[in-house]
Amino acid sequence: LDWDRWVMMGLIGFTVGFTGFLLHQVIDVLANLKWDRSRDYLGEDQLLVTWGWVLGLSVALVIVGSGMVVFLAPAAAGSGLPELIGYLNGTVVHQIFNIKTFLVKFISCACAVASGLPVGPEGPMIHMGGMIGAGLGQFRSGTLGLRLPCFARFRNSEDRRNFISAGAGAGVASAFGAPVGGLLFAMEEVSSYWNMKLSWQIFFCCMVATVTTDLFNSAFEGFIYKGDFGLFKAEKYIIFQVKSEIAVNIIAFVPAFVLGVLGGMLGSLFNFLNLKVARFRRMLLAKTSSYCGKRLLRMSEPVLIMILMATAAVFLPAAFDCTPVRCEEAAAVATGNTYSCLGETSRLDVEQLSAVETHTCPQPGVRSDENGTESTLNGTTYNQVATLMFVTGEEGIHHLFSRETHRQFDYAPLLTVLAIYFTLACWCAGSAISSGLVVPMLFIGGLYGRVIGQLLVTLFGVHYADGNRYWAWMDPGAFALIGAASFFGGVSRLTMSLTVIMIEITNDVQFLLLIMVAIMVAKWVGDFVTHPIYHALLELKCIPFLDAEPVIMHDGHEPLNLELHCAEDAMSSPARMVHLVEPVSNIAQLLLDTPHGGYPVVHAEQPGEEPTFYGMITRMELCVLLLHEEVFDTKEIVTEASFDQETLLDYNVVAVHKLQDPDELDKLLTKYRKDPKYQTQFVNLQPYVNQSASSVHKKFSLHRTYIIFRSMGMRHLPVVDSGNHVIGVLTRKDLMGFSLEERVVHRHRHQEKSDE
Amino acid sequence: LDWDRWVMMGLIGFTVGFTGFLLHQVIDVLANLKWDRSRDYLGEDQLLVTWGWVLGLSVALVIVGSGMVVFLAPAAAGSGLPELIGYLNGTVVHQIFNIKTFLVKFISCACAVASGLPVGPEGPMIHMGGMIGAGLGQFRSGTLGLRLPCFARFRNSEDRRNFISAGAGAGVASAFGAPVGGLLFAMEEVSSYWNMKLSWQIFFCCMVATVTTDLFNSAFEGFIYKGDFGLFKAEKYIIFQVKSEIAVNIIAFVPAFVLGVLGGMLGSLFNFLNLKVARFRRMLLAKTSSYCGKRLLRMSEPVLIMILMATAAVFLPAAFDCTPVRCEEAAAVATGNTYSCLGETSRLDVEQLSAVETHTCPQPGVRSDENGTESTLNGTTYNQVATLMFVTGEEGIHHLFSRETHRQFDYAPLLTVLAIYFTLACWCAGSAISSGLVVPMLFIGGLYGRVIGQLLVTLFGVHYADGNRYWAWMDPGAFALIGAASFFGGVSRLTMSLTVIMIEITNDVQFLLLIMVAIMVAKWVGDFVTHPIYHALLELKCIPFLDAEPVIMHDGHEPLNLELHCAEDAMSSPARMVHLVEPVSNIAQLLLDTPHGGYPVVHAEQPGEEPTFYGMITRMELCVLLLHEEVFDTKEIVTEASFDQETLLDYNVVAVHKLQDPDELDKLLTKYRKDPKYQTQFVNLQPYVNQSASSVHKKFSLHRTYIIFRSMGMRHLPVVDSGNHVIGVLTRKDLMGFSLEERVVHRHRHQEKSDE
Repeated sequence: LDWDRWVMMGLIGFTVGFTGFLLHQVIDVLANLKWDRSRDYLGEDQLLVTWGWVLGLSVALVIVGSGMVVFLAPAAAGSGLPELIGYLNGTVVHQIFNIKTFLVKFISCACAVASGLPVGPEGPMIHMGGMIGAGLGQFRSGTLGLRLPCFARFRNSEDRRNFISAGAGAGVASAFGAPVGGLLFAMEEVSSYWNMKLSWQIFFCCMVATVTTDLFNSAFEGFIYKGDFGLFKAEKYIIFQVKSEIAVNIIAFVPAFVLGVLGGMLGSLFNFLNLKVARFRRMLLAKTSSYCGKRLLRMSEPVLIMILMATAAVFLPAAFDCTPVRCEEAAAVATGNTYSCLGETSRLDVEQLSAVETHTCPQPGVRSDENGTESTLNGTTYNQVATLMFVTGEEGIHHLFSRETHRQFDYAPLLTVLAIYFTLACWCAGSAISSGLVVPMLFIGGLYGRVIGQLLVTLFGVHYADGNRYWAWMDPGAFALIGAASFFGGVSRLTMSLTVIMIEITNDVQFLLLIMVAIMVAKWVGDFVTHPIYHALLELKCIPFLDAEPVIMHDGHEPLNLELHCAEDAMSSPARMVHLVEPVSNIAQLLLDTPHGGYPVVHAEQPGEEPTFYGMITRMELCVLLLHEEVFDTKEIVTEASFDQETLLDYNVVAVHKLQDPDELDKLLTKYRKDPKYQTQFVNLQPYVNQSASSVHKKFSLHRTYIIFRSMGMRHLPVVDSGNHVIGVLTRKDLMGFSLEERVVHRHRHQEKSDE
Repeated sequence: LDWDRWVMMGLIGFTVGFTGFLLHQVIDVLANLKWDRSRDYLGEDQLLVTWGWVLGLSVALVIVGSGMVVFLAPAAAGSGLPELIGYLNGTVVHQIFNIKTFLVKFISCACAVASGLPVGPEGPMIHMGGMIGAGLGQFRSGTLGLRLPCFARFRNSEDRRNFISAGAGAGVASAFGAPVGGLLFAMEEVSSYWNMKLSWQIFFCCMVATVTTDLFNSAFEGFIYKGDFGLFKAEKYIIFQVKSEIAVNIIAFVPAFVLGVLGGMLGSLFNFLNLKVARFRRMLLAKTSSYCGKRLLRMSEPVLIMILMATAAVFLPAAFDCTPVRCEEAAAVATGNTYSCLGETSRLDVEQLSAVETHTCPQPGVRSDENGTESTLNGTTYNQVATLMFVTGEEGIHHLFSRETHRQFDYAPLLTVLAIYFTLACWCAGSAISSGLVVPMLFIGGLYGRVIGQLLVTLFGVHYADGNRYWAWMDPGAFALIGAASFFGGVSRLTMSLTVIMIEITNDVQFLLLIMVAIMVAKWVGDFVTHPIYHALLELKCIPFLDAEPVIMHDGHEPLNLELHCAEDAMSSPARMVHLVEPVSNIAQLLLDTPHGGYPVVHAEQPGEEPTFYGMITRMELCVLLLHEEVFDTKEIVTEASFDQETLLDYNVVAVHKLQDPDELDKLLTKYRKDPKYQTQFVNLQPYVNQSASSVHKKFSLHRTYIIFRSMGMRHLPVVDSGNHVIGVLTRKDLMGFSLEERVVHRHRHQEKSDE
């Protein structure tokens, strides 16, 4: 049963997983090159040289990443998620599933992440997953001119949509190592249509993607084979693994609630500012008239952000004091590269100050690594800001999430980094480079979460997990995790998928309830203030998106109950329609006059009667029919039996997505319209009409009309009267909020006036 | 926005959570009473007394639990899940949301689980959650005659359905401590209609339920306060917490695949046998004629199972040898009640043989608990079978899942227990007691999973997690977990929700991929052989269930493509309909003649024309109208303007679910039909007709008709011709597999014949 669909899902999963592996490794290579060398320079106390190296390499990477986007494939900018969501909602967005876009996206994303911009690879990974689903699922390519013979049955819009959803889910699964989270993300955020059978197949696809990525990542680091192929080590495939488990206390729900409120407010602020920046950018670009000027302006933006970021990373730490390695009631020891606290309680296993950044801080304690003995390092110092800024984003998040490190970060460094990172991340999202928001969201959330946790430590002191378990929840690292979830929730307004993703990337089920509370509160608070970021971007990008349920505000205040209105209140009328047997000239006229994508077909059963609704035909089908002169006939009335089988066009000929030569068609149409000969040439549409087109009665509730239109994924919905005569057509645009508001409220006012 | 809905969701969550807490505590009290006393008797070497005690108490509990179900509320039998699923699919199932059913279910479930039958509390918890959602959401009770004034706006079928879904989800969340799993379970298995807004609210409901259960459970054990109120200890609220984390290896996918195949086959066998038993039971009951005989027969069944189970639990262990406490390359030590292995590697923390059952085995080593020193216990013995059978089901699963206990169980005990438990669990599910399947499924799966794991240990030796990490995955406990997931999957065919539940109840994200593989394979294999258990039970209980997509087999072999058929092929015709203005006698006649739940209303715009489809009216609305003689009118044609506002019935009067006196109505109807006076009395239905009723054209694709019918949750769908005249009606029954098969295939054959 359906084995080919499973094979295809497996193929998509594998390809997405392998792409994820490649991206991961490329970023590793570039990032290691940058940071290793810069640490060497720092070790030689050459701060300026360090700055030069960091700045030079990063700016070079950004120029490559941004230049490719600007000059080769503008559709590869940003995360690509709004476009993907819009496409799956039923809007055609151009260029987003190209091979060129895919390649540019891959390189641009690798450059952006490796350069150290405040961006992550997750969003682009999702878009790339969608592209793989779209391309591989069809087994053909317009760019390459390929059209392979297998899997031809998937070449229809429903399967294409499903494969894109699967690919997007696999993208999440591969990027986060979170197969269930990927599935839920595809369901909650990306897709507009869903059924349970599909969810099982996407589950498989996500699983294959995760296994593939983990399998290859298990043995490679920066493309260098490290052994242990096939061993999925937890520290590698659970990105932000939490090691110290802490029992949750009911009192902890209070700070989690506070974090949720903060997340909702800061997330809304982020969305608000991001949109402001985007509007300002658009205004500025509109003022610039020259072709090259526009592009250079677009490119200069990420470069400018990069310069600020690199400068901050190198020089900002120097503005802060060095912190001595310290432990509560105990001495510090060094094991290899990490420091631990050796106390009376068995905190030996906890990596207390795991791989902190020393930056330019003095290191008096000589570590005796070679003979294996551990020396006390109480004189050693590290730099807090460098530990957060002078590393990759993922490492920074690791530091923030680390447990039992109660005093690792103070307020001043945390708040300073928060201010800088928030501003730059908000600015960067939307600039002309392929970038995702997840890492910045986790980072920002982790920062203020840790501040709240620190506040608790300052107020109530340090409590270890192996001490009094009742108070162990006051761990800044744990609150950084909750904060990250709350900010992610405040920006994206995801719920289930976000919860599962947070669990899957940290391997900590214990904090599930606290995370849920924070996400829930963040969504509540955020929804009062702004739209979720992806939906706001959809609006900004003018992609018409139909929500699952219509919420129309009347005069911007009270919601309008659409159950009290009916379909005819919202429809466009009069509708342009075609008769079942129509002169060629009329059809040409219609196609030239209107840009609609589909037309209702009407037919009178008895001559002389008013024609009733018969079905729908798309613009493309009409065009193809007019291109084939052999279907023209001089007889006007053609009964079903009299069809000449030879002139009947094949389904594959009629059902095309794109015309080969649109210009030729235009010429032909003009000819048909002008030449009087074609007024007596008829086309019988009967074999090509979609008779399973729905229609609604004019008095049908507008609310339910919306639901039907949305959940059936329609493009045109004819409105008929009691006699089944077409009196209007509803399209996506008619059902968009602004249009409904205008028409319904207008009618409302009109009625009120006439009542007076 | 919608705050009252959130309050209601919170209330439902809290109530379900508190019910879960109460159930948990009651079971604790009863089970502790049983096992503690029996262990005391065993300690005194009184095997027969033990047997008497276990048997007596258990049988008493079963008689209470089963008697209440048989005599008070037969709807409380079993898990209640099929009924719930059927109800949410759109079928009215009687008695399942009663207060009486709720109380009986609670007590019966507590008795069944505490008695030691091979059943779990999870299924009933879900049903009880649904009942709470149904009752609390409406804020009224038919049984108690209550009808509170608040939350009246939720008294409609859509909200009721949503609250039931939420309650069911909360039931899972409370039973497993798995809020996300509960949400997904409600979505994947329980509900037929879903939207994303709903999922967010149910998410909240599940969260509240989990928090409530965990909060109260945190401080109580068998209703005795234990301190630490509000501290959510992981060992308590993560039911089967896994403590030793093991890195996964790619090679481990092979045994996971094997386990998946086993799970699919054994799960199908389970379903098959369970149905066979159910059919046999029904046959036997049909033969018994007396009222009391039937009931006693029903009651004797769980009692018989209980006798077998209790006897096996007490005497079977004695048939097996005692096993010495042994460790690989190390000595055993006792810390309190548990034994650990003290080796060179730091396995000190792992509870090696956690609280094994000694049963009648000799205990030579004197443990020196009091002065705190640990004594070597290599002479101590324990009984493997008793460790699995002489405990509650949950404890047994704990033992099976325990990690780093490579040699705790041998093949013979595992396989013996497997055979006994499989048979009894399969028999018990479906008998007249309130019982769930989850614990037995996990137990059975854990047993054969552990056998496979043991096989690997026998073949390749013992590998510890802190030894060679590459081979550490060969842990029988880990394979017990995968086996449990595979059997659960093989029986229920759940995917996403099962995966998340397994993660949430074990707190082990590392095995996620292996669990996914096992579940996926189990579903594939299982779907080849039998239906999922809940769907099979739906069929057995004759609940008409519409699947998400129609799969109709033609002659039992090839699937039929419903796109090639149209709505008129499946409809029932001619349809009985009413005119917009109809004589009272005609309506009475119609109601007496037909049992339908709704009728199409037709109306001719111009006198003399054939009437066209106008809307739908339900049977209940017609009945209510006929009960109010003031709406009758002698004029036949009533225009909209001429309505007498005083005789217009209020919406709340017309929209009722149940008539107060059905007998009186029958008398009235007969009077209306016979008395010629009522042939000239008319009712104008115009104000009461649902004008937003959908209809489909007779040539509309049958496949899409099915999808629309199913996804819009319809009960009647009129079929019209081009002139909008009603020519037939589609109902749920017309779209059931067997009916479609009959009609469509019949038509198919008929066509073939006429073609010849």
